[in-house]
Amino acid sequence: MLVLGIDPGTACTGYGLVRGDDRGAVSLVECGVIRTRARDPLAARLREIFDGVAELIARHAPDTLSVEDVFYAKNVRTTVVLGHARGVILLAGQQRGLEIYELPPAAIKKAVVGTGTATKEQVQFMVARLLRLKSVPQPADAADGVAAALACVMETRLPKLDELSLIAKRRVAR
Amino acid sequence: MLVLGIDPGTACTGYGLVRGDDRGAVSLVECGVIRTRARDPLAARLREIFDGVAELIARHAPDTLSVEDVFYAKNVRTTVVLGHARGVILLAGQQRGLEIYELPPAAIKKAVVGTGTATKEQVQFMVARLLRLKSVPQPADAADGVAAALACVMETRLPKLDELSLIAKRRVAR
Repeated sequence: MLVLGIDPGTACTGYGLVRGDDRGAVSLVECGVIRTRARDPLAARLREIFDGVAELIARHAPDTLSVEDVFYAKNVRTTVVLGHARGVILLAGQQRGLEIYELPPAAIKKAVVGTGTATKEQVQFMVARLLRLKSVPQPADAADGVAAALACVMETRLPKLDELSLIAKRRVAR
Repeated sequence: MLVLGIDPGTACTGYGLVRGDDRGAVSLVECGVIRTRARDPLAARLREIFDGVAELIARHAPDTLSVEDVFYAKNVRTTVVLGHARGVILLAGQQRGLEIYELPPAAIKKAVVGTGTATKEQVQFMVARLLRLKSVPQPADAADGVAAALACVMETRLPKLDELSLIAKRRVAR
């Protein structure tokens, strides 16, 4: 299982490719950022993001796309522009027939660190630890992309703790 | 000059193609809507919108794309999802090298009716009048797409009243 994780942004979109094998082992294949110029019109920047993601998909042929869900910033304008970027990223995945997951920031933190309220530093530390990296992926947006991919691998390949506890509860109820 | 006007929406994206000739005459070429199914995942709906707009561009070869700017609804979630739809529409225009205009709702109303605070009915009435149609384009989203195209033709081809009045003021100042 190869997952392309994306942290969308109009100025800087972070990405990470994480492989998960049958025994639950995870490894980092590549990570980085797609940068766009602030002085370019929005449509041109969206095309650069789309082309960048499409190129990653063509080169690595991942089977799954994991996109961080919109963080509702205080500045509504920022959030809406971010929605434009997410739109073209989802389109790139859909055009190539990838399985698509949209994970809220809290779910990514929960999967990687164990709590949805973890700090950015905690998440970066655990991303590096779980993937056996010597340092945290740089820049921070790249690390966020890796976290989105890693969370998706862990969410879909490991037994869900919530489900296990649900089963336990049902047994008690009987 | 042939303008493709779009009123973006995730459920229903309205469009209109308006031609403006050298003498300032305008005519409607085609209008309609691109509908998506509410039960489909967002990525699939975005692809339908993108494919629909790309098909219109391929079939009519407009030189300009006019997209209504985001209306900041009270429901932020709705506005953000709308941003996703706008993102793939702008991408379709950018990929085909169209000149792109993003017009705020008030600017569209101002261009077509003369005031940014006009009602929807006023706008529809003037759209039909200016394009010499026997009735208002249906459904309403299609009429909004036509208004976006018409406003763009009128804004870019007719002398700007603001500029004229500015010139008059400068003359007075001298």
